[in-house]
Amino acid sequence: MGNNNEDFVKEITNIEEDFAKWYTDIVRKTDLADYTDTKGCIAIKPYGYAIWENIQKVADEKFKETGITNLYMPVLIPESMLNKEKEHVEGFAPEVAWVTYGGNEKLDERLCIRPTSETMMSTMYAKWVKSWRDLPILGNQWCNVLRWEKETRPFLRSREFLWQEGHTVHETAEEAKERTLLMLDIYADIIENYLAIPVLKGKKTEKEQFAGAEATYTVETLMRDGRALQAGTSHYFGQNFTKPFEVKFQNREGKEEYAYQTSWGISTRLIGGIIMAHGDNRGLKLPPKIAPTQVIIIPIAMHKEGVLEKNRELYDRLKKNFRMEIDERDNYTPGYKFNDCEMRGIPLRIEMGPRDIEENKAILVRRDTLEKETVSLDNIENRISELLEDIQNNMFNECLKRREEKTTVAYSLEEILKNLEENQGYVKTMWCGSRECEDKVKEVTGAPSRCMPFEQEHLADTCAICGKKATKMIVWGRQY
Amino acid sequence: MGNNNEDFVKEITNIEEDFAKWYTDIVRKTDLADYTDTKGCIAIKPYGYAIWENIQKVADEKFKETGITNLYMPVLIPESMLNKEKEHVEGFAPEVAWVTYGGNEKLDERLCIRPTSETMMSTMYAKWVKSWRDLPILGNQWCNVLRWEKETRPFLRSREFLWQEGHTVHETAEEAKERTLLMLDIYADIIENYLAIPVLKGKKTEKEQFAGAEATYTVETLMRDGRALQAGTSHYFGQNFTKPFEVKFQNREGKEEYAYQTSWGISTRLIGGIIMAHGDNRGLKLPPKIAPTQVIIIPIAMHKEGVLEKNRELYDRLKKNFRMEIDERDNYTPGYKFNDCEMRGIPLRIEMGPRDIEENKAILVRRDTLEKETVSLDNIENRISELLEDIQNNMFNECLKRREEKTTVAYSLEEILKNLEENQGYVKTMWCGSRECEDKVKEVTGAPSRCMPFEQEHLADTCAICGKKATKMIVWGRQY
Repeated sequence: MGNNNEDFVKEITNIEEDFAKWYTDIVRKTDLADYTDTKGCIAIKPYGYAIWENIQKVADEKFKETGITNLYMPVLIPESMLNKEKEHVEGFAPEVAWVTYGGNEKLDERLCIRPTSETMMSTMYAKWVKSWRDLPILGNQWCNVLRWEKETRPFLRSREFLWQEGHTVHETAEEAKERTLLMLDIYADIIENYLAIPVLKGKKTEKEQFAGAEATYTVETLMRDGRALQAGTSHYFGQNFTKPFEVKFQNREGKEEYAYQTSWGISTRLIGGIIMAHGDNRGLKLPPKIAPTQVIIIPIAMHKEGVLEKNRELYDRLKKNFRMEIDERDNYTPGYKFNDCEMRGIPLRIEMGPRDIEENKAILVRRDTLEKETVSLDNIENRISELLEDIQNNMFNECLKRREEKTTVAYSLEEILKNLEENQGYVKTMWCGSRECEDKVKEVTGAPSRCMPFEQEHLADTCAICGKKATKMIVWGRQY
Repeated sequence: MGNNNEDFVKEITNIEEDFAKWYTDIVRKTDLADYTDTKGCIAIKPYGYAIWENIQKVADEKFKETGITNLYMPVLIPESMLNKEKEHVEGFAPEVAWVTYGGNEKLDERLCIRPTSETMMSTMYAKWVKSWRDLPILGNQWCNVLRWEKETRPFLRSREFLWQEGHTVHETAEEAKERTLLMLDIYADIIENYLAIPVLKGKKTEKEQFAGAEATYTVETLMRDGRALQAGTSHYFGQNFTKPFEVKFQNREGKEEYAYQTSWGISTRLIGGIIMAHGDNRGLKLPPKIAPTQVIIIPIAMHKEGVLEKNRELYDRLKKNFRMEIDERDNYTPGYKFNDCEMRGIPLRIEMGPRDIEENKAILVRRDTLEKETVSLDNIENRISELLEDIQNNMFNECLKRREEKTTVAYSLEEILKNLEENQGYVKTMWCGSRECEDKVKEVTGAPSRCMPFEQEHLADTCAICGKKATKMIVWGRQY
């Protein structure tokens, strides 16, 4: 809050010099989040939380259009419940927080804070499903989860984070698989068309899939520094959980059968993605569709008679159509305020002073290109709508261009390493499908596989790592 | 989920015979919530959660209209942080859950799962507030909290529950007090005008106030069995937290000063209130404004040609204006479906069969009075709107009438007891203001004080308990 340094934008670390430090500068200086006394956990401040609310709103509507209903399960999971699915517990037990006391009493059984809720959902669904008529169950919860990470970074890897976790059960494998891919498509839609970040859609390798899943699908995004961020995942479980948790139903032939299950999630990590995919040396750059403030009015020569009134009038008028802010602070200069709203990533700003008012005009300045234009107040709504749409599209296209510049092809392990060292980004290669080759790439380059893209290309006949027959094109990339 | 007993509404315990059992029957048979393997914690099922979402939507909008912004703080609070305010820790420490292990490592300091977040909010606000220009901070979070209750009941007293907790800090005591009462008014508005439950507004006695508060204000509601339910509270803290947590600011005179603080909350407990304030022997009765389904269509003679199509047409048409459902299940009779939608408390149902279709009509049946009427399809939207409004008002008035019937005046301790034994309900008396008299009423009658109503009446000159000079009218009542 209060900062009297006129040149304060210089306080943000240069993005080319130290991307990691630039990132934390942005998070803190734009009031997205703050560190807390609970190690590894952040406080999401109103400006950051408002972005999350806008993402939630879009996602929740899209989920519900496909029949999803929200529900809420306990945050505490008994140890014996977590232990029921072997792969799952091995994946998660090392990183859960354990409750051992309730008030002054030691508990008979430890309870973990949910790292994810497959076990609890499956336990409850087993009680709720009797017949095929009870299927599908299309549940989702918006909640907090906790994973005891060693290294944490605001939004990207926080011990506690907010997310939605959808859990569905179905009569047939086919229907469950369809749901898995449907939710992936919804994630892609949200991330591309609202967050303005292009996604790479594909299937995770067995090594990289979710603990307990039969298949994990992912939407991968690329940040400005060329590192990848897994933005959302959707899992098909087959009967991996319904068997140990006994989610059984009487099928249409009157026989008992295990149901088929999915789960899928996106989290506050997306806020980190927005910062790193779009931001620049001036600060944050928010896509208009999810920006808490789409347009800010900065009155010029505010002390002059009638100026503030006219600016307020415009604010009241535009507030009907856009998410608006007006900066009436009297202890900052307009110049400071321009920097400030650029740093906060507000897509469009309006400047209006005595002369503009006289001429029935205002100046519009875009955050993405910094282009200025003077427009008549008469039709200003139309022009703002056009500009916001254009900014949204331009941000997506810029991001796509950067991704394309950072996507390369490699034909050997050495080349994968070389490309990553020079350029980071995505490296596409052919792959034989073996875990051995995958491990080797990780070991040598530090890059795990991102996914086997749905859009396959035939780059060569042989695996870039071992030279044996290739079965798939795969994408590698260092990650957040 | 599947229930083939035609007479299933009889399975609900009679409300006059065993109110407590009636309550849990409703919760489970109408799919509001279910018990889980995490002792004392419930799973809120989609039908119950949808009610909560509707309450959230209304409340969140009203909060934001007054400048409130949402944020999110860590669920885990270090023990040393909880210990900073003496009264507060004494109130909450016995009922918190403690995390002692993160993964396989024992923690240096225990972390409790938040029972409420005054301590965390104050810690963060202290970092964010420097000058009077940073004030007020008007924060709120929608989240889960946990209190290690011994006796639990779905929605009413669950170890984990969902709520919103607002926490604001202000420049002056006056402004903070105003905010405390403003939020109480918003709660009253939501509960009366959306949940259709009349509230009694007042101030809690020192004995009953929140641990650490200077004053607690409450909106009290009365259930059908005459027991009271505290539906929402708003606290004024003065500087009780800002001093130990050092929430200081430079005031307009350039001097350092401690800020003034409030907090306020409503929770999923309100769902229990809706059940118990309105329900009857047929089941749940939901106020139209927060009912997940406002109108249900039950096609009659569904197998006859054209019937289902016409019913679906009507459904598609009405869905633009109302929250709709259509019951197309082919394994239940219309009679069963009537019972079912009454049990689920859907405010209005539409029955439409071949003859109605021929006559361009449909039958509307209200859940509150069970009155039927035949209406033309031409203007059915208007009639539905009228009826929903009427149902909403009628439910409030019925509830108010029941409360008035269960509100009595007493002039002695014996009379308080007699009234409660006969009638439960609220018992109004004069009171001297002493803790001793308050303790005595609780001890003898089991009824704590509800509040000192804002609307005071002069019933007598002397305290009903000790006979000394009375200073206040107070209301007593046994509670949930």
